Amino acid sequence: MTDLDAGLLSPVTVGHDDAVTDAAVLDALVQAEVALTRAWAAVGAAPQSAADAVVEALGDGHGIDLASLAAAGVAGGNPVIPLVTLLKERVPADARAWVHAGATSQDILDTALMLVAARAVPQIVVALRTAEHHLAAFALARRDQVAAARTLTQHAVPTTVGLRAATWLRSIRRAADRLEGLTLPAQLGGAGGTLAAFVQIARNAGADAAAAALPAAYAAELALDAPDAPWHVTRWPVTELGDALVQAIDAVGKLAADVATLSRTEIGELAEGAAGGSSAMPQKQNPAASVLLRSAALRAPQLGATLHLASALAVDERPDGAWHAEWPTLRELLRLALGASANTATLVEGLAVDDAAVQRNLDLTRGLIVAERLSHEPDTIARADVPGVVAAVAAGADLADVLPGPRAGEIADPAGYTGLAADLVDRAVAPEPTTPEPGAA
Amino acid sequence: MTDLDAGLLSPVTVGHDDAVTDAAVLDALVQAEVALTRAWAAVGAAPQSAADAVVEALGDGHGIDLASLAAAGVAGGNPVIPLVTLLKERVPADARAWVHAGATSQDILDTALMLVAARAVPQIVVALRTAEHHLAAFALARRDQVAAARTLTQHAVPTTVGLRAATWLRSIRRAADRLEGLTLPAQLGGAGGTLAAFVQIARNAGADAAAAALPAAYAAELALDAPDAPWHVTRWPVTELGDALVQAIDAVGKLAADVATLSRTEIGELAEGAAGGSSAMPQKQNPAASVLLRSAALRAPQLGATLHLASALAVDERPDGAWHAEWPTLRELLRLALGASANTATLVEGLAVDDAAVQRNLDLTRGLIVAERLSHEPDTIARADVPGVVAAVAAGADLADVLPGPRAGEIADPAGYTGLAADLVDRAVAPEPTTPEPGAA
Amino acid sequence: MTDLDAGLLSPVTVGHDDAVTDAAVLDALVQAEVALTRAWAAVGAAPQSAADAVVEALGDGHGIDLASLAAAGVAGGNPVIPLVTLLKERVPADARAWVHAGATSQDILDTALMLVAARAVPQIVVALRTAEHHLAAFALARRDQVAAARTLTQHAVPTTVGLRAATWLRSIRRAADRLEGLTLPAQLGGAGGTLAAFVQIARNAGADAAAAALPAAYAAELALDAPDAPWHVTRWPVTELGDALVQAIDAVGKLAADVATLSRTEIGELAEGAAGGSSAMPQKQNPAASVLLRSAALRAPQLGATLHLASALAVDERPDGAWHAEWPTLRELLRLALGASANTATLVEGLAVDDAAVQRNLDLTRGLIVAERLSHEPDTIARADVPGVVAAVAAGADLADVLPGPRAGEIADPAGYTGLAADLVDRAVAPEPTTPEPGAA
Amino acid sequence: MTDLDAGLLSPVTVGHDDAVTDAAVLDALVQAEVALTRAWAAVGAAPQSAADAVVEALGDGHGIDLASLAAAGVAGGNPVIPLVTLLKERVPADARAWVHAGATSQDILDTALMLVAARAVPQIVVALRTAEHHLAAFALARRDQVAAARTLTQHAVPTTVGLRAATWLRSIRRAADRLEGLTLPAQLGGAGGTLAAFVQIARNAGADAAAAALPAAYAAELALDAPDAPWHVTRWPVTELGDALVQAIDAVGKLAADVATLSRTEIGELAEGAAGGSSAMPQKQNPAASVLLRSAALRAPQLGATLHLASALAVDERPDGAWHAEWPTLRELLRLALGASANTATLVEGLAVDDAAVQRNLDLTRGLIVAERLSHEPDTIARADVPGVVAAVAAGADLADVLPGPRAGEIADPAGYTGLAADLVDRAVAPEPTTPEPGAA
Repeated sequence: MTDLDAGLLSPVTVGHDDAVTDAAVLDALVQAEVALTRAWAAVGAAPQSAADAVVEALGDGHGIDLASLAAAGVAGGNPVIPLVTLLKERVPADARAWVHAGATSQDILDTALMLVAARAVPQIVVALRTAEHHLAAFALARRDQVAAARTLTQHAVPTTVGLRAATWLRSIRRAADRLEGLTLPAQLGGAGGTLAAFVQIARNAGADAAAAALPAAYAAELALDAPDAPWHVTRWPVTELGDALVQAIDAVGKLAADVATLSRTEIGELAEGAAGGSSAMPQKQNPAASVLLRSAALRAPQLGATLHLASALAVDERPDGAWHAEWPTLRELLRLALGASANTATLVEGLAVDDAAVQRNLDLTRGLIVAERLSHEPDTIARADVPGVVAAVAAGADLADVLPGPRAGEIADPAGYTGLAADLVDRAVAPEPTTPEPGAA
Repeated sequence: MTDLDAGLLSPVTVGHDDAVTDAAVLDALVQAEVALTRAWAAVGAAPQSAADAVVEALGDGHGIDLASLAAAGVAGGNPVIPLVTLLKERVPADARAWVHAGATSQDILDTALMLVAARAVPQIVVALRTAEHHLAAFALARRDQVAAARTLTQHAVPTTVGLRAATWLRSIRRAADRLEGLTLPAQLGGAGGTLAAFVQIARNAGADAAAAALPAAYAAELALDAPDAPWHVTRWPVTELGDALVQAIDAVGKLAADVATLSRTEIGELAEGAAGGSSAMPQKQNPAASVLLRSAALRAPQLGATLHLASALAVDERPDGAWHAEWPTLRELLRLALGASANTATLVEGLAVDDAAVQRNLDLTRGLIVAERLSHEPDTIARADVPGVVAAVAAGADLADVLPGPRAGEIADPAGYTGLAADLVDRAVAPEPTTPEPGAA
Repeated sequence: MTDLDAGLLSPVTVGHDDAVTDAAVLDALVQAEVALTRAWAAVGAAPQSAADAVVEALGDGHGIDLASLAAAGVAGGNPVIPLVTLLKERVPADARAWVHAGATSQDILDTALMLVAARAVPQIVVALRTAEHHLAAFALARRDQVAAARTLTQHAVPTTVGLRAATWLRSIRRAADRLEGLTLPAQLGGAGGTLAAFVQIARNAGADAAAAALPAAYAAELALDAPDAPWHVTRWPVTELGDALVQAIDAVGKLAADVATLSRTEIGELAEGAAGGSSAMPQKQNPAASVLLRSAALRAPQLGATLHLASALAVDERPDGAWHAEWPTLRELLRLALGASANTATLVEGLAVDDAAVQRNLDLTRGLIVAERLSHEPDTIARADVPGVVAAVAAGADLADVLPGPRAGEIADPAGYTGLAADLVDRAVAPEPTTPEPGAA
Repeated sequence: MTDLDAGLLSPVTVGHDDAVTDAAVLDALVQAEVALTRAWAAVGAAPQSAADAVVEALGDGHGIDLASLAAAGVAGGNPVIPLVTLLKERVPADARAWVHAGATSQDILDTALMLVAARAVPQIVVALRTAEHHLAAFALARRDQVAAARTLTQHAVPTTVGLRAATWLRSIRRAADRLEGLTLPAQLGGAGGTLAAFVQIARNAGADAAAAALPAAYAAELALDAPDAPWHVTRWPVTELGDALVQAIDAVGKLAADVATLSRTEIGELAEGAAGGSSAMPQKQNPAASVLLRSAALRAPQLGATLHLASALAVDERPDGAWHAEWPTLRELLRLALGASANTATLVEGLAVDDAAVQRNLDLTRGLIVAERLSHEPDTIARADVPGVVAAVAAGADLADVLPGPRAGEIADPAGYTGLAADLVDRAVAPEPTTPEPGAA
């Protein structure tokens, strides 16, 4: 097999995508089939011996060649069709009928992709939580370090280094919470979403009630959420997953945008712990991780859009292309989120502040960074006099020298105009629970 | 003012976008300013007289010319800057200082857009709930009407007309639930997100604690959610709103795809109550509402992607373009969701079934629609004999004639192979609550 | 009519979108109908009197109410159906049959949108050419002004202010050339793309050859390109237009990204002539035009994607939603390109350079900006010694002081390491023609 | 190495993406480096022996491990940095200085991606031309076979099977022409786009003019277009390529939409030669190739949008993320276009028409398919009488029976109302050249 995609063109994902490789997808497909037989046994339709035989034949490895399977999947449009044949060959004859029993390709493929997601999402969450942990420490450590806030590229008012980090933290936490709150259901509907074959098979086995119980049992085998109904053409499990992944990448993208910007040669307030080198310029310290995060952030939203399109175009009881468009798209979104979250955890752990640069930038406008405050200090300066003072500072004076009165130095000090920054840091680091615990109070 | 967009090119939205016009946005901007002064009074910093004066001056109408304001907003990049000047002129001098007190443009604009959303979203939800209501009745009425299920464009197995409608219903309900669960927070952070000016103003007014209390008071005035922190550069309130709107449009898009397909001349199972005419072909009964819904569904995902990009690119304490890209995009998404949901409610209310066409299509393959079942009827036919029977039917025979044994007619009857369709309808129409009610036991 | 979109949320377009308003679209629709009658006369099928009557009735204004028409267009899904009725009422009875004769709604709407494009695109091109003109002058004036080149946010090597402008110029020129090279064809195919009704009408008029000649005549009346065939479901005229518009917005977006970045408080090399103010911070000089351009640049690509989706989904002889999705999308792209190009022309005309800031930034790394050069100066420094020298400068020394030999100062001077920058400026400003003129040589 | 992407989730591309694998990209990177040394020799700066040594060392294979290289590329953000080190190790010491001489990573990576494109695009074009060839034969063979044209899902008027195919042909030809017309330039600008290192190296070699000649020589070595300037941050070579690829996928997507629709069980006019099977329903003949093509068509536009975003965000002299976002995106677009075009060629070669189904559908409305014509047959029926006749047919009569007069049967015959369909086929199959040949006339 050629190395179609070793990550050469996608450095942000290198080393972080084991959970979403084609091999991992194949494993998930096989496990979805194994789980189906086990679920049949669990609901009392299949003999336990059939489940045991399938587990024995397929549970420890399947030996299926990925490239051949992929090639065999072209004619029918999906890999499950040839896979079922291969799996049945590996299972003893008397258990064979319980392989893929009643299922359609989509049941297996959708379930397998949810299984892949169910493995990848916790990895993403762990990486985001690690980033939160480092950001919380960083924010507390820098809670009162005053820095320039910038709006529309211009210095605006003072903020703190800690508040900036707390802001990143809040976005990342929100995204991680949303990922944790996702519903990742197994899919089981049969050829048309009615579960008719399951009903028939259960009846033949003298276990009429088994079909209705099967989806939940199937989900339980795989530790997925039980579906409230087949979702073959109601694709919110895919789009809600996609939206949450994009939101996570947005959150780290915003952080990366700030780190990259604040690493600019002229700004220099932040530096990645392990900056990237250059093939030609030995002095360069590129914010390489931020650059890679930003590349992911520019790609993810359009992938999310494709998932929504596929959902809206899910015509009939299985659509003619929309379903197929989801597979590589969802996988690439998972891959990007895995890579982006892992790189973020590393980045924020090593993030360094150049205190001198922070202070130098803060002083750059000689006090104009608190110009807004002047309108709110009537005892020191009348509102009508503010423009003159601003103009004088813009012309080169220091605000502390130009301001009249005994509080000139105090008013001109950015540290005195950071509002609720410290409180916002504290609340971000130790947020109040938004919902009361069960049994609380 | 020119009629830039009267809906000539966007029929799906005509008559449904009052809540999101520029005039509505302007009203929301003014109300956001009024609410700020009232909130200052509520937290004890501003005199009640100032709040009263502002309400008197601006509460019943502002008389601001929209086109002029839009033009004046170009130089600074947003309309709030000139708006503040115009509003102050309308307020008595002694209350004037409490207009926009401490706020930055983004506080007002973000809050106003949330206010617009807070008005539009319930309209969308009402329309979706109306559609749910009609679909529930439709699904129950058609609960046992057997029809062909189609996968990859081909007849697959039987389903029911009711199950198809129940499937639409579930997607729409999920989307409506998600819209209802949105957090739409007011925004109040001041120039850099620290609330520094608010702190200063509160202190000047001898009400030091007022600044910390202000955001919640502000949100309360507008019946918006209280923000847990300024979200000037943590844009999940916008992207989560956008995602939910797209999800709603996806849900009705899937329905429209089915209605359009099942309205095809050759299929003819469904018809819109009020079908669209043609300028040239008097006999045509176009599924015009479905067509318009589909046009919305093709546009919405990319608008949602733009919101995510803006979130990921929210550099600094206010970004240099990403924030501005959100405004028209979010408005257009709201507009599409308003129009799409309203048209859906109408469409499903009038949706007609051609029973004869449903039956004709079901019979089209002379029994092959239950071919899957043949593998599960060992008493009637051995699995090895199935291909021969299928081939015979494909060649022109009727399945009921070709099948051996006394149950041939029963097995060949699609009505006997609808699995759990009826149960799925019942559960969709009367879903179990997913979370226990407070106090339930 | 409500003011749905006066530009309040889209400042980049305010004042520049007359060519694409709904009123302009309505005019184009009417002109498309008038042109059809005139074309029928031109090919000898209709009497000239009918063409004259239509021109007299509709040529100087139609008096059709836009909002009513938009509302009337909902039922059938497009505004042409009710428009034809209204237009026929305005035309004398004996000419009436020649209104819309043989046409389908799509013929008129597609042609009208091409007509709108044919009016908007030259405005865009003029604005881009104006920008090119100013950029050429700027680039020549700054041809040899050395500045820091930045890669991955870090100072890399020297470049020139002129080369940066020349780079913008080249992108804009390429985009303008592409816009000028577009094919904007009239559309005329009749109900199914066969022109059958036209053939019938021509035959009835005793002018059998007229139908085949009609599309070109129709295009000629409107100064559009003659179609080589009906393009009702081959939508490259729309996507190629969309792609070229997006490319133009990309080009000015890149310029705006640079202007915004180089306007940062810490960098300060560039300033917009008319910088935007702030509602709270009197000292701020925001790069407001760049911000607006960037907002357009973030939105345009996803609109272009929607046009491509519509093209790919153009099923049948007129699709059930894809066509309708094009209309508002194409209009918004035209609107963005009109606004973005106009704002660019103004921006570059007023663009100011802070020479001191350029020099200060260039000196910021004390010579490291030419570190790459050190590997190529073997007579002065051995390659093995470069890291030591770089480290010494990084530690605070000046490169000119650390370098050995008589050429130390010369080598450390960024002005000596600008490569072909001046030549690249000259070639960008006065490019060689890429294709020989007819008759050349 | 794990099999990250063997195509399991992307069947449309399986077997068609050799030209764009990571291995192929690595080969292109190596060739780009080899070409640079050769170009240095060609312009007289490097000794021919250095070029020969590099060719000998790297020309026949490089032995570089892909996975290791990908991993090594993470730290610096791109694979060229470690690659240069590895390549230099493989080259004799006296030639080593001419490896990567003067280049920056972007020069090599951009050039390599253009080289990959230059290999993939002709494959795509060949496949599209093959599809054109088959479609031309198909269209001529079916030139006069009358069929129902459908608009908004409803039968509209007659068309021909041949005209439908000719319409597909025209779109595909347009796309192939555009691909053939692309400019795919080599990239050579050095660290900041000034070519300064190249100038220095040339000067050191006593070949001052060599640097200016180098880009064209470099391009010539690789058979790429000579760049008119470095395009490191003017990304139209990437977006124009992307747009053309998306246009090609649009074209085949439209064809696939038609084939899938016309293969519907109820319509059945078309069938893919090798239809896909089902894992559960032996009778199904899925339009599997069309389904896969549609999946590509739903994904491609959003990938194209990402390329445009990257172009618009190409800040500085190398952007901090936008450039990196292009690589996997462009590769995936090439991959989709390779797979989609190859599958299209196969699909159209085997495309089968069910003549009986075509006729049955045409007759379905008992003549209403020519209802439009009735308004243009005044000798047979007055316009005022048309609605009555239409109503009678809608109620179950045959048009030929209801129409008065001797020409009733002729008028009711769809074959008499196909307009210019045959001419349009002829012109599509043998198009007139749009531009005069050199030396013509």
